[in-house]
Amino acid sequence: MPETFRVGLLGHGTVGSAFATLLEQRADAIVSVTGLRPELAGVLTRSRGDFEEILARSDLVVELMGGVEPARDYVLRAMRAGKHVVSANKQLLSQHGEELWACAREHGVQLRFEAAVAGVVPVIRVLQESLAAAHVERIHGIVNGTTNYILTEMARGGMSYADALRQAQRLGYAESDPTDDVTGRDAAAKMAILARLAFDTPVHLDQVRYEGIEHITADDIAYAQQFGLGLKLIGTAERVDGGLSVRVHPAFLYRGHPLASVEGPFNAVTVESPAITEITMSGPGAGGPQTASAVLGDVISAMIPPATTPETSQALPIVADVESAFYLHMEVADRPGVLAQVAELLGMQGASIKSVVQQGLGQDARLVMILHPLPESRFYAAVHLIAQLDFMRAAPRAIRVIEEEFV
Amino acid sequence: MPETFRVGLLGHGTVGSAFATLLEQRADAIVSVTGLRPELAGVLTRSRGDFEEILARSDLVVELMGGVEPARDYVLRAMRAGKHVVSANKQLLSQHGEELWACAREHGVQLRFEAAVAGVVPVIRVLQESLAAAHVERIHGIVNGTTNYILTEMARGGMSYADALRQAQRLGYAESDPTDDVTGRDAAAKMAILARLAFDTPVHLDQVRYEGIEHITADDIAYAQQFGLGLKLIGTAERVDGGLSVRVHPAFLYRGHPLASVEGPFNAVTVESPAITEITMSGPGAGGPQTASAVLGDVISAMIPPATTPETSQALPIVADVESAFYLHMEVADRPGVLAQVAELLGMQGASIKSVVQQGLGQDARLVMILHPLPESRFYAAVHLIAQLDFMRAAPRAIRVIEEEFV
Repeated sequence: MPETFRVGLLGHGTVGSAFATLLEQRADAIVSVTGLRPELAGVLTRSRGDFEEILARSDLVVELMGGVEPARDYVLRAMRAGKHVVSANKQLLSQHGEELWACAREHGVQLRFEAAVAGVVPVIRVLQESLAAAHVERIHGIVNGTTNYILTEMARGGMSYADALRQAQRLGYAESDPTDDVTGRDAAAKMAILARLAFDTPVHLDQVRYEGIEHITADDIAYAQQFGLGLKLIGTAERVDGGLSVRVHPAFLYRGHPLASVEGPFNAVTVESPAITEITMSGPGAGGPQTASAVLGDVISAMIPPATTPETSQALPIVADVESAFYLHMEVADRPGVLAQVAELLGMQGASIKSVVQQGLGQDARLVMILHPLPESRFYAAVHLIAQLDFMRAAPRAIRVIEEEFV
Repeated sequence: MPETFRVGLLGHGTVGSAFATLLEQRADAIVSVTGLRPELAGVLTRSRGDFEEILARSDLVVELMGGVEPARDYVLRAMRAGKHVVSANKQLLSQHGEELWACAREHGVQLRFEAAVAGVVPVIRVLQESLAAAHVERIHGIVNGTTNYILTEMARGGMSYADALRQAQRLGYAESDPTDDVTGRDAAAKMAILARLAFDTPVHLDQVRYEGIEHITADDIAYAQQFGLGLKLIGTAERVDGGLSVRVHPAFLYRGHPLASVEGPFNAVTVESPAITEITMSGPGAGGPQTASAVLGDVISAMIPPATTPETSQALPIVADVESAFYLHMEVADRPGVLAQVAELLGMQGASIKSVVQQGLGQDARLVMILHPLPESRFYAAVHLIAQLDFMRAAPRAIRVIEEEFV
């Protein structure tokens, strides 16, 4: 029987309950990675539970209450009691970070907060670990999913700000009081945290200038498209004249910028540094299960020694024949029945044509098609037969197509 | 005086010498993060240095020799001597990973290898730490910069494979013998390592099917563009029917795919899992300084306890007035001299116009311009004056523009 690792949970809203579920679902995997079995030691909600009792029973405390008090008090008390803390609380860290980090250092405990910025996008870990001693020049981030969703809808459909906001609220991407998101204040708190870590200097939320998206019109977005520009709410932290500027405002990006293609409720952060050029990370910025995954990653890191590669707990069979969609290119004689014969051979192997373009080339024709996914062995069996048709002018050319489209 | 942390360096090629330089350049930053001063304990090259002597003097060994032997022997001996090891050796890990990881567990040392896959893109750390117990469904990766550069050039300029390869060799993106890159074997080794970590199952390079890009024509790329498809050399590791498929082959991607916009010598990896949806990470896949940065991140992680947020070592001044490029939108009366007056007010503040579009709207006109970067205070001073011109039909609208374009 593996030893138990007890997790005290403060807060049981969307993220808190998703975390409790995930901790149970992944318990076996966590045992195989850490050798310890995680267990909820207790849950504190507004109406239930006693903090001191939960603390006494916990090896680690997860704080998902949000807001400054009483979260600050609980986190400090947990660390003073020698417990590791994992928090997703951007307000708390952007306003009281130095006090909390000093307390963690003093008591030799870990304070992890990946989920406080950009949800499951691992930017905190990368800044604190991969880039611990890097000279960072600049960070650009799309760190608020609500506003990125609204701007995406305004750009796609020419929707007004008010309509896009209402749609975001209906779909759960915006809260009924969206002030913190649409004014840029939420993004400002996240940029304060990122700037603190990247530039090794204290940054308080009050030092971050921010502007929101409330005054953006669909017209602005449309006019700027003719210059090849797309609009995002961008957080920036950068070295300027020996100092630091941290700010959030709507900004146009050229299409080649790594953040220009980030759409919908996704978040993304680009870190620039001379030695690394730049790293971009993107993923869902919010959502209960996604944020809970970031919290769980932190909990597991607090449970295990770093950089262990555990023994494998299984040996999955390696599968040879998988399904793929395909691009198929044929040079054929331009005569009746060609397409029908090709289609028949494909159909006998279960291949279904998604799109086809046929183009005459004098006496010959070029036939290019995209096929829906099928087992590769069946596809190549069909191609083998097609290659032998007497109207083929060259060997058919096949290249796989990856079908999924995101957001 | 901080204590010294001694690093033994095996290999002194492009990455090795970049690492030695970076370790020295970042020594002060490393002291402030870890409390320890790093120092090269010795360098082993083909012609100089003695492994046993370097090992005896080192707290940690960095292996940048490449190839299987004698790298395997040295890494095992270092770990058996109780030293942490950082390696960038994909051949070694994709063929002897289980032996090496078992040795690390047995001797309680860290074996880190971020730089073995996708250079500075922190995919190893994210899989091993952030996603340690996640149920990963699929990984897609562009993990070879040479082939991505060649395919990007073929798509952009209609260049033949042979010409694009020669250009890559001239610019240092491809080696004089490019076999390992263009056949997909290099990418296969990296996918074996990623699959091992993501799916918690042993994966050997020999189990990875791979196809290269040698037979791709510029025509294929051009024809597929009409279907909205772009070509990449894609590594895939995914669950299939209770098993695992790991493979590398050229594949077309739709424009919305997160890997579709990865161009030039960059690498990127997308990890899909139900709880997280998907994370994408991208950055330079190779290059001496970039790979050396990944190695340094691993070395620092081996030096410090995890998730410490060190005290800040400085207090950078927060800068209020920064430079920005701007989009400026004006509704004006359509009469002579309007553009001249606006341009004059802008010019007085040092604003320079990058592009402008004027469009008649009956008696009025719409004037939209993009300005080159200038201090924001000067820009807003000009806008304040422009707003008072008698031909303005509405308040001018200003939105910042982020100028940099990547790759």
